[in-house]
Amino acid sequence: MQKSELAQQIKRKKSYLCVGLDTDSSKIPSHLRGEKYPLFEFNRQIIDAVADSCVAFKPNTAFYESLGSKGWENLEKTMEYIPKDFFTIADAKRGDIGNTSTLYAQAFFEQMNFDAITVAPYMGADSVQPFLAYKDKWVILLALTSNAGSADFQQLTDQNNQKLYETVLQKSQQWGNAENMMYVVGATQASHFQQIRQLVPEHFLLVPGYGTQGGDLQAVSKYGLNSAGGLLVNSSRAIIFADQTKDFAKTAGKLAASVAAEMAEYLK
Amino acid sequence: MQKSELAQQIKRKKSYLCVGLDTDSSKIPSHLRGEKYPLFEFNRQIIDAVADSCVAFKPNTAFYESLGSKGWENLEKTMEYIPKDFFTIADAKRGDIGNTSTLYAQAFFEQMNFDAITVAPYMGADSVQPFLAYKDKWVILLALTSNAGSADFQQLTDQNNQKLYETVLQKSQQWGNAENMMYVVGATQASHFQQIRQLVPEHFLLVPGYGTQGGDLQAVSKYGLNSAGGLLVNSSRAIIFADQTKDFAKTAGKLAASVAAEMAEYLK
Repeated sequence: MQKSELAQQIKRKKSYLCVGLDTDSSKIPSHLRGEKYPLFEFNRQIIDAVADSCVAFKPNTAFYESLGSKGWENLEKTMEYIPKDFFTIADAKRGDIGNTSTLYAQAFFEQMNFDAITVAPYMGADSVQPFLAYKDKWVILLALTSNAGSADFQQLTDQNNQKLYETVLQKSQQWGNAENMMYVVGATQASHFQQIRQLVPEHFLLVPGYGTQGGDLQAVSKYGLNSAGGLLVNSSRAIIFADQTKDFAKTAGKLAASVAAEMAEYLK
Repeated sequence: MQKSELAQQIKRKKSYLCVGLDTDSSKIPSHLRGEKYPLFEFNRQIIDAVADSCVAFKPNTAFYESLGSKGWENLEKTMEYIPKDFFTIADAKRGDIGNTSTLYAQAFFEQMNFDAITVAPYMGADSVQPFLAYKDKWVILLALTSNAGSADFQQLTDQNNQKLYETVLQKSQQWGNAENMMYVVGATQASHFQQIRQLVPEHFLLVPGYGTQGGDLQAVSKYGLNSAGGLLVNSSRAIIFADQTKDFAKTAGKLAASVAAEMAEYLK
């Protein structure tokens, strides 16, 4: 998907919500656990219920891998099911030497037709570039994550008084541009958004940590939105696991609609 | 597997060779491609052929994921086949927020019974600690990798004139110890080994980049070996894809034996 298409979807739906399909097999309603593809069956109902309120879906691969090849099949079926006008993100946080990153790109861009994959920057340019070789596909590079551990290395200050995540934002702009790269910036890091927007004014930011992790949607939106929208704010558990009864999808649909209504205000 | 058992295996076999099962489906001999589990069939023959010369096996997950759920099945069958006295490493370079890293740990330590997994440090303590909660399992943290991109961030110097990979080596010692953590240090970085050994004298180092990537085994061994062995030097393509005929396993066996013979000299 191209940037202009994603911007259009956001404008049309008045929402920049991404629903995280962190489909934990131990948390899905018990009546689904006997299904042949329980994670897919859960996802299918969630996708239908939230479709009007979000523009993107983001399965985190860990939840599928933890079930082995069976889990992987559930992920494949989920990707086949998601309509093509949604932006799809493999939250995989991959990154390896060049020839190996090429194979990860094949796995997620060719085998499963994701639009985007999250990539860890630690191994540098040649671990990221193989993903950028794909037309109309996206790298979403970890910059400043939502967890406490983001303080350990991402916020270290170098000899030029620049933090590591700022160097990641700067240096990676030599590898790609706002048409094929986004950055992960946690919603829990709202105080940093203004200055991050100075470094990457045009790029989309994928913002996890809203919802269960306590990020502030209003602050993120105030400093993060740009003319193309420029934000994909993700919510996973707070939407998909709010209700563990047979009504789970209905509840998820209502919660997603309520987030989207708040986003519509910020987009005005 | 415990550190003492690994040290014993190295002593017994006079080898610290790890064979990388980077089983690229486009490079396996053509007569295997019609098999139901072609990657597993290839791996099975390689494992048998090199078993006397190595102490560890390291499948890189990218080569399996690139084939989707079928690839994942090949990885599962490979893990079932490897005898229990080999140290097994999932070269997966994972790392995510805490609850998600826990699921990756389940995938690799429980579902597939790997002894170790490679982990990227960018997200900090809480992305690594869930893996350390498993008894007799190992985190192998990326420190200084073998690729050119290692210069981009890993070798950045901070305000205290310390490089990022040195900070990773230091800070991570608060999370684990030489009994449950190892570090990835590329064989192409031989000039750094002496100083790395001062920071982590007791830890095992997993050393990729020997073979095709041109690392220097003699220099790595001179500065890297310690009383427990302390090194797992990996070779993948240079051993497993040296011969693409029906004799591939025999050739791999000879090459592994030759590396092991060189290692036996350095162990004296």
